[in-house]
Amino acid sequence: MTIRKQLPAGDPRPYHHGKLAEALVDATFDIVREKGIEGVSVREAARRVDVSSSAPFKHFKNRADLMLAVVDKAVESLRIAVEASFLSQSDPLDCVRAAGDAYLAWSYAHPVHMQIITASCASLPRSADAQHQIDEMTGYWFAWFGAAASSGALRGDPDPSIAAVASGAQLYGLSSAFAEGRCVSPAMAADPLATMKSAFALHLANLRS
Amino acid sequence: MTIRKQLPAGDPRPYHHGKLAEALVDATFDIVREKGIEGVSVREAARRVDVSSSAPFKHFKNRADLMLAVVDKAVESLRIAVEASFLSQSDPLDCVRAAGDAYLAWSYAHPVHMQIITASCASLPRSADAQHQIDEMTGYWFAWFGAAASSGALRGDPDPSIAAVASGAQLYGLSSAFAEGRCVSPAMAADPLATMKSAFALHLANLRS
Repeated sequence: MTIRKQLPAGDPRPYHHGKLAEALVDATFDIVREKGIEGVSVREAARRVDVSSSAPFKHFKNRADLMLAVVDKAVESLRIAVEASFLSQSDPLDCVRAAGDAYLAWSYAHPVHMQIITASCASLPRSADAQHQIDEMTGYWFAWFGAAASSGALRGDPDPSIAAVASGAQLYGLSSAFAEGRCVSPAMAADPLATMKSAFALHLANLRS
Repeated sequence: MTIRKQLPAGDPRPYHHGKLAEALVDATFDIVREKGIEGVSVREAARRVDVSSSAPFKHFKNRADLMLAVVDKAVESLRIAVEASFLSQSDPLDCVRAAGDAYLAWSYAHPVHMQIITASCASLPRSADAQHQIDEMTGYWFAWFGAAASSGALRGDPDPSIAAVASGAQLYGLSSAFAEGRCVSPAMAADPLATMKSAFALHLANLRS
């Protein structure tokens, strides 16, 4: 079999043949990057992947349906980044630190994804699957603080749920505020990711007894 | 002068006479509450205050203009709530605590306003005046941590800017996540404001040397 046979010249199939849904979701991330979430429409996504404005409706019956798939993709990307981070850790607060740093690095590298996650904490709906993935990550988080409290690792012996909420909000606040780089003091702008990691490290160092 | 003369029966003036701009902004907060920011249009705001769809254009030339005024109102409301909170404090970390608690109480009482503030950290533009008010609050915040560091009040003698960023992100994360009540563990749902204040208190207690 020749290369020419595998990729026949003049093949009329568009590059997204069989992957139109994925191509539309990817195009939507581009739209959000350029115009914000409000700029998204199924028609615009179709235009960007060069299909007719009716073609997307086989996969997404409306804008809300498309946005559900976009939230799914953002949540899955976050889960994969975080899941890989703490496997080599055993101490629960080391797991918190590793997962937190992974979350910050992910949000800094994927500001549009983070913007989608932020919106899905407010007005943008999540699918049952996305909610399940978020719940699973939240479950780990609370379990680590519970384990840390049991072994006396938290300074002043606080309610571990409060420590988990504080630390989760810390991460969420750092990454969502930095996602668009606007809620940042000019003094911090030189290396935002280093600043985010230092702030989280300070919070966490102070939590340890 | 009789009461009847002050409020003549059958006065044909609409309630927003002379205050149409304000009425449109208030109506927009209602739209955001019901439909999210994406649901806002000048036409819909006009419909809600019962004026013709062309009437608003004397005040707001388009949707973006209307949203600028909405962000202005949200930021001003936050500034007033925070400004009143720390006047009786002298210790810088007591100022941080008072301003932080005021911010949390405000965001909990005004979730739609907080949603607008959150969006103005991402894709929603701010007027120069709103940005100035935010910058002023940020200035106070960093100054308090600078003063606390100078008097040795911060545990482990951290960079005061990092402590300020961590504590600001803590507040921002707590209040924006709670603003719509979705990024909350079920265990925390009983009294969200108490949980938010406890989490911030824990963060701050750990910062003190």
